Amino acid sequence: MKQSQILIPTKKEAPSDAEALSHKMMARAGYIYQVSAGVWAYLPMAYRVIRKVENIIRDEMAKAGAVEMMMPGLLPADLWKESGRYESYGPNLFKLQDRKDREFILGPTHEETFTSLIRDSIKSYKKLPLVLYQMQDKYRDEDRPRFGILRGKEFEMLDGYSFSADQAGLDAAYDKQAIAYRNIFNRIGLEYKVILADSGTMGGKNSQEFSAPAAVGEDTIVYTDGGYAANIEKATSKFDGVQQHAALAELAKQATPGAHSVDEAAESLGIESNQIIKAMLYMAKMADETFQPVLVLMRGNDEVNETKVKNALDCLELELANDEQAKKYLGASFGSLGPVGVGEDIKILADRYLEGLVNVACGANDDGYHYINANRDRDFRVDEFGDFRMVQEGEIAPDGLPIKFTKGIEIGHIFKLGTHYSKQMGAQVLDQNGRLTDVMMGSYGIGISRLLSAVAEQQADENGLVWPDSIAPFDVHVIPVNAKNDDQMKVANEITTDLEAAGLEVLVDDRKERAGVKFADSDLIGLPIRVTVGKKATEGIVEVKIRKTGETIEVKVAELVNTIQILLKNNLQQAE
Amino acid sequence: MKQSQILIPTKKEAPSDAEALSHKMMARAGYIYQVSAGVWAYLPMAYRVIRKVENIIRDEMAKAGAVEMMMPGLLPADLWKESGRYESYGPNLFKLQDRKDREFILGPTHEETFTSLIRDSIKSYKKLPLVLYQMQDKYRDEDRPRFGILRGKEFEMLDGYSFSADQAGLDAAYDKQAIAYRNIFNRIGLEYKVILADSGTMGGKNSQEFSAPAAVGEDTIVYTDGGYAANIEKATSKFDGVQQHAALAELAKQATPGAHSVDEAAESLGIESNQIIKAMLYMAKMADETFQPVLVLMRGNDEVNETKVKNALDCLELELANDEQAKKYLGASFGSLGPVGVGEDIKILADRYLEGLVNVACGANDDGYHYINANRDRDFRVDEFGDFRMVQEGEIAPDGLPIKFTKGIEIGHIFKLGTHYSKQMGAQVLDQNGRLTDVMMGSYGIGISRLLSAVAEQQADENGLVWPDSIAPFDVHVIPVNAKNDDQMKVANEITTDLEAAGLEVLVDDRKERAGVKFADSDLIGLPIRVTVGKKATEGIVEVKIRKTGETIEVKVAELVNTIQILLKNNLQQAE
Repeated sequence: MKQSQILIPTKKEAPSDAEALSHKMMARAGYIYQVSAGVWAYLPMAYRVIRKVENIIRDEMAKAGAVEMMMPGLLPADLWKESGRYESYGPNLFKLQDRKDREFILGPTHEETFTSLIRDSIKSYKKLPLVLYQMQDKYRDEDRPRFGILRGKEFEMLDGYSFSADQAGLDAAYDKQAIAYRNIFNRIGLEYKVILADSGTMGGKNSQEFSAPAAVGEDTIVYTDGGYAANIEKATSKFDGVQQHAALAELAKQATPGAHSVDEAAESLGIESNQIIKAMLYMAKMADETFQPVLVLMRGNDEVNETKVKNALDCLELELANDEQAKKYLGASFGSLGPVGVGEDIKILADRYLEGLVNVACGANDDGYHYINANRDRDFRVDEFGDFRMVQEGEIAPDGLPIKFTKGIEIGHIFKLGTHYSKQMGAQVLDQNGRLTDVMMGSYGIGISRLLSAVAEQQADENGLVWPDSIAPFDVHVIPVNAKNDDQMKVANEITTDLEAAGLEVLVDDRKERAGVKFADSDLIGLPIRVTVGKKATEGIVEVKIRKTGETIEVKVAELVNTIQILLKNNLQQAE
Repeated sequence: MKQSQILIPTKKEAPSDAEALSHKMMARAGYIYQVSAGVWAYLPMAYRVIRKVENIIRDEMAKAGAVEMMMPGLLPADLWKESGRYESYGPNLFKLQDRKDREFILGPTHEETFTSLIRDSIKSYKKLPLVLYQMQDKYRDEDRPRFGILRGKEFEMLDGYSFSADQAGLDAAYDKQAIAYRNIFNRIGLEYKVILADSGTMGGKNSQEFSAPAAVGEDTIVYTDGGYAANIEKATSKFDGVQQHAALAELAKQATPGAHSVDEAAESLGIESNQIIKAMLYMAKMADETFQPVLVLMRGNDEVNETKVKNALDCLELELANDEQAKKYLGASFGSLGPVGVGEDIKILADRYLEGLVNVACGANDDGYHYINANRDRDFRVDEFGDFRMVQEGEIAPDGLPIKFTKGIEIGHIFKLGTHYSKQMGAQVLDQNGRLTDVMMGSYGIGISRLLSAVAEQQADENGLVWPDSIAPFDVHVIPVNAKNDDQMKVANEITTDLEAAGLEVLVDDRKERAGVKFADSDLIGLPIRVTVGKKATEGIVEVKIRKTGETIEVKVAELVNTIQILLKNNLQQAE
């Protein structure tokens, strides 16, 4: 392919609003074009990368027995009303009407559509299992689209769905997908972690998230060198139990004027902040749409993990109470809240680290006052103990090793949905005994367009993009230093013909630009191998540069194809 | 691929609302699934066909020097306000808002988006020509979606755009696309006509439409055996001029009580209906948004071609006047309208066949009265003569041969847009003389999903679909008559392995269904070659059936691969 025929609008400067390395470099390298905030075009080079990713996915999906098809992006609202997500999905859902005022949405994911297909098409367990997938643009009305194509309103996803008649079938399909996902990310040449994750709004309980460590990642990944990895929302640390042994002292109320934080209260009381209870009042929207006040108790220096609380309550939404609600339910403001004297109408959850403590301090539900020597059962009630806290870096993980934090980009997620959607939407088949049974579902997704961002975040350098060979838009960049020099152009064309005959994809910079411009653009574009055809071309010698390492070697034209094949093979092996 | 792993939900009955053969058969064969009216899923078999069509397109686009990329489907309304189409496109445009009430549309076509990309990316003629294309789902809020995937609200299109610095560049790009389109349709194995067409709302003047003759086609194609072909809106016949020679008789007003139609008036007056003028009053919305009354005159037995009138007026919209407007402007109702005494405020267009007539009859603008012996210039005024009539079957075409009519499905359309969009949106480059010049554009489209309907309309039979080999989802359907018979399954698996090793794509019906069900499904699915593995399998003999012709032959297993390769090659040659 001649560079003059393909649109690669490289730029010296990144867009002023670009924060992420991947955004800066993909924009500068002429890979992406912003049509609107969070809405991007994939220019020819980016689209070549996307198609290579798609082909790797297609290959691995076929190996896993999954079959490709294509659902529409425009979905009738009725389908989402059946599942309940039309209301519960929130403001990220694009809603619209057609000319006859029928309601539609733009699909952010397709559980409902596939469930409906199977409900209408499959009547017997004999036709299962089935694993179907599609690679398609999805829509989410992001509040803050950012980082280029990493978080956009429209983005390409692989979404797959498995349908089985029983749990064993679901487990098998899920396991095959888990393997396929690893193969896909390995072939792309991406560093990633498989982490325990919360399932969010997907309705499933069993899931694995695939996350690519990167500075701009929006998730905090908790991991150890031993292989433990979890999302911060899900992460837990090793807990051996704590039991303080001391005589129960007398409950006493003390003034703590001006102490609004735990640390201030501890200082005022002259105790360690770990011996004081932090009490946080939440309002939980329950399944029956009522709101339930919930008081969550922690050690003073711990933070509440709201996802864990939400899961324990199995509520639809969880929000920190406002000052007015705190006054109404507990008679005091945040900073002076505590469990002593709290009525049965307020549910009290406590972190497991509190279970063995005695003689603790806590807010007195009276502004400017705390209790000391409060003791459970004698002075206050706890309805449920559990793990409700955020883990902290340096703690010991369940595998016995110290916890580390890193930022990560979510690139894939697989879920065992079970019968959540099939029950809601009536997708049933006859089982072996002729009885109707709810279809067991799994849901599997990879963010295809954001994979490009993840790769760029991990592999780009200060000169531009660096693509792994498996997904590079072309394998080789051939650069005649002077496109007006007939000898150089002749060698460049011969080389291109030879490389293409060997099955390699070649971009030839046939532009009449200065050599400096061409080299800078070549680094920006980031193909794995650059072949420079310069003054020694007449002697049959060209220069080969490896983009990733910057290494250069002079190679005889006659040995070029062989040399490049070996170099690409090595690149590939390093990536695996 | 095993049939048990792929979703092909065949049905005995077509959906009750299915009118078109293609709709019935694609639904019965388990190729498509309706998600909402006019919104379809492509099930695995249909999606395989679509991907084969995409690959043929990709191949021919590369040969034509066109480069693939991908625009978003969600487009900011502002872009379409720049071109004026946000208002002018009409109710087919899906409009929506994001969470911050910013206006968006779902792209039905992408002239604006590509023009904006080029405006922002290209500053010099040196970077042109460029031809960019994408294959993408488009959205049109169709009033009456119908015929399955032939006319849907969401459908897949190839849309391409060429950008050149001058007319010669546009002409060259357009010609290359015209060739590529012919190659694509030829390779798919579709019967089609290249016709003169009206450009509609695309804003271009020079265009070719590709239309596939089919019973459910929504366009009337006018053609001759000599190669003339045009849309009914654009079609014209050979016109040698008409000149009647007779003394001008005296204008006289006659009562024509109860005569509302031309035929009734002619009978009442005792003349041929061709000697009477049909006068139709239209209201034209002009470029300045004012409404202009226009009286269009025809021979009595001709019909007005509103597209030709609209083009002559260069107006935004053209609507037949209502009775109230007829009364207001001409003082009479339809049926008694005529040109005599009409003031200068009403524009009068007349078909060229009227130019040489003398002593014609016409409505008197007085209900129940006609004039006889009306003569132009003496009795009435004509502002412009032209070709404003619908051609009729059997007339002589411009190529001297008799005109035939057929129904056709529009499958492709190429336009020379010129500078329409670049002027509106300010896409300019510096030319060779350093002067800013508007970029010359072309726009090129193929309806990818509706191609499947067109092929099915032309090639399906009463038993089901019949796919040309170039786009068939698989090449060969291997059917072990009894999947419980180990010998048959063994031969079926061996055959499959051999065929796949030879590069053929094979679907094996491994389902434990009755033979009759399998054969019926096989005919419905419509793969080019069926191999039946039955009782003679143990003797090493299988049956080969050609789906298109129904011919069957017995073949030795050892010769099967070779036989099928020859058969498919023949199929392919017939299609070319």
